[in-house]
Amino acid sequence: MEKKNSVGIIETKYFTFAQAPNQLVLESGEKLGPITLAYETYGALNTERSNAVLLLHALSGDAHVAGIHKGEQGSGWWDSMVGPGKAFDTEKYFVICSNILGGCQGSTGPSSTNPKTSKPYALDFPLVSIGDMVECQRHLIDYLGIKKLLAVVGGSMGGMQALAWLVRYPARIKSAIPIATAVRHSPQQIAFDEVGRQAIMADPAWHEGNYYTGPGPAKGLAVARMIGHITYMSDTSMAEKFGRQKRNKVRPFKFTADFEVEGYLQYRGDNFVKRFDANSYLYITKAMDNFDASDGKPLHEVLKGTEAKVLVVAFKSDWLYPAYQSKEIAKACKLAGLQATYCEINSTYGHDAFLLEAKGETHLIKHFLKKVFYEYEVTGTYEI
Amino acid sequence: MEKKNSVGIIETKYFTFAQAPNQLVLESGEKLGPITLAYETYGALNTERSNAVLLLHALSGDAHVAGIHKGEQGSGWWDSMVGPGKAFDTEKYFVICSNILGGCQGSTGPSSTNPKTSKPYALDFPLVSIGDMVECQRHLIDYLGIKKLLAVVGGSMGGMQALAWLVRYPARIKSAIPIATAVRHSPQQIAFDEVGRQAIMADPAWHEGNYYTGPGPAKGLAVARMIGHITYMSDTSMAEKFGRQKRNKVRPFKFTADFEVEGYLQYRGDNFVKRFDANSYLYITKAMDNFDASDGKPLHEVLKGTEAKVLVVAFKSDWLYPAYQSKEIAKACKLAGLQATYCEINSTYGHDAFLLEAKGETHLIKHFLKKVFYEYEVTGTYEI
Repeated sequence: MEKKNSVGIIETKYFTFAQAPNQLVLESGEKLGPITLAYETYGALNTERSNAVLLLHALSGDAHVAGIHKGEQGSGWWDSMVGPGKAFDTEKYFVICSNILGGCQGSTGPSSTNPKTSKPYALDFPLVSIGDMVECQRHLIDYLGIKKLLAVVGGSMGGMQALAWLVRYPARIKSAIPIATAVRHSPQQIAFDEVGRQAIMADPAWHEGNYYTGPGPAKGLAVARMIGHITYMSDTSMAEKFGRQKRNKVRPFKFTADFEVEGYLQYRGDNFVKRFDANSYLYITKAMDNFDASDGKPLHEVLKGTEAKVLVVAFKSDWLYPAYQSKEIAKACKLAGLQATYCEINSTYGHDAFLLEAKGETHLIKHFLKKVFYEYEVTGTYEI
Repeated sequence: MEKKNSVGIIETKYFTFAQAPNQLVLESGEKLGPITLAYETYGALNTERSNAVLLLHALSGDAHVAGIHKGEQGSGWWDSMVGPGKAFDTEKYFVICSNILGGCQGSTGPSSTNPKTSKPYALDFPLVSIGDMVECQRHLIDYLGIKKLLAVVGGSMGGMQALAWLVRYPARIKSAIPIATAVRHSPQQIAFDEVGRQAIMADPAWHEGNYYTGPGPAKGLAVARMIGHITYMSDTSMAEKFGRQKRNKVRPFKFTADFEVEGYLQYRGDNFVKRFDANSYLYITKAMDNFDASDGKPLHEVLKGTEAKVLVVAFKSDWLYPAYQSKEIAKACKLAGLQATYCEINSTYGHDAFLLEAKGETHLIKHFLKKVFYEYEVTGTYEI
């Protein structure tokens, strides 16, 4: 069924800006440039340029949200949501997905070449923030000629970016859909990230970040990813997926994986290492930990006067980004006078639910977008 | 107040058994011996030998449950519970705390000398089980001349040992108090343990367990301990303890700990390394993961005919050993016809609550023990 409604063969595009001397001034005050963003688009921009939806990805995501890359198997990370007739209906909307600053999937990050040294930046890459990521996306949106996005949408760290758009560029968006996210990380969320970072930095192959000529901290990164995976699932979803099934016993016993869940985690950890840069993991998790949508102030204060409509989505079994954090967002929006809806989807998938509960999300998002788009069409001044 | 009711200066004792050729046959079928257990006792055994309480410790605990070791600062790990007038009133009860087989705090474990090679066992140490730990404790209890324990009590892995006593030696105990524990680990609990083990084994200084002449996998063990600490606390207790407080900023930024919670985790991780053996961490967590109190059968079936009284204690914010797991224990006890009480203490401390909620636990345990002891006194045949 998904194949039938696929956007088909898709190619990643690249947008480069902030060439010297016009480098981007980051939140930290440091300058960075040139900056390349990998991005993909699906569907067509209408003549009024009023149908553009920006999708924002999570920690390990990339620009490839839907369709298939030529010669590759498997489709994008939210293929169930993006395509003809789907939640983000590519026959109605122009869907953009942008990779992030600091990443390693085609965009400028610590593994990119530092023009000053002609070597990878490694830890000379500046500290980046969720705000900086959004600033880069704003440049991309300018470049694409879009004055006002119909919606900014994302789960987890993508939701943080959606919130940053809402706070920084309320005039540039008609609506925001933050999913399974938080105004700021709790100490528990910071702690899980920190242990992942410690696992990477404890690996001697990390070499203070200068590993690009060697094998790199594969074992440390795998451990970090394993920790992540536990937090993305729920107690229930793990029990349903694995039970206490044992794999074949190895004798003599040498701490090999004998429960299915152990083998799964090791597999996922090892797999991640092939596609992700350890330094990017450090920079991106730090950006998430440092994120505070309202910069220490109450969120409702900084949202006052904003006109965007907001759909907040949370999942019952998500203990990494518990529903109370999403409720906090919805509450602040309402306090600030925004039209905000809060929906909690009854899922057992834990945090992963934002990627998996396509049916529930489609139901909510399709309706919400339709309404926002209709109002935009009727009342909108297109400001082109 | 605690000082006032302290058991005072305490010395650890050692009990050695299973000398060749009478080595202990482990659950795995392998033989091990000699075996030494470190243990401590508080109070005095009465002439009827009816007032002995066996305390069982958790993963990183030791035999030193109360009082002070000469020349050392700080008291035992449950000093708030053991002493004159306390929950385990040393004026009434003879309290024993035994270290575990596989440990590294005075008992035989992977860091002990293998009599065959005169070198540390390392990974030649056999796979041990919670049942094996209890088997060793049973030898200790025999040696101390106690036919029937008034109670076996423990939190977390200590609770698993209490359950193993209940299933293996129901005739040797009057009661059991399993606290914040489970009949068997869920995949989530196994997963957290496995990531800890992976962190240790990913450290090149682990050397397949043969690190006793070198520095050992300090970084890997610290990461394992950090993961543990997150799971021992709750989202709420972390928020209360740390908030989003930042430490002094280090410039240039190099992924040093800047949130308080990061510094705390690193401190706790580094501290643990000084007192704990990494191989013991592997063996003990594996014993916990392999534990199944009723060996695949329904617990109530294996408990049928058992006469011990059971007090099951859980804590509301404990997400590592969620209350539903304790309820399962209490339910099985009742189904099997045992006198069982289930109590859920309203704490925000998470899994750590079993060490910290002395007031609530004292209230429950003091009363329970008194009742069991009274009935024992009135009806008991002492079988000496």
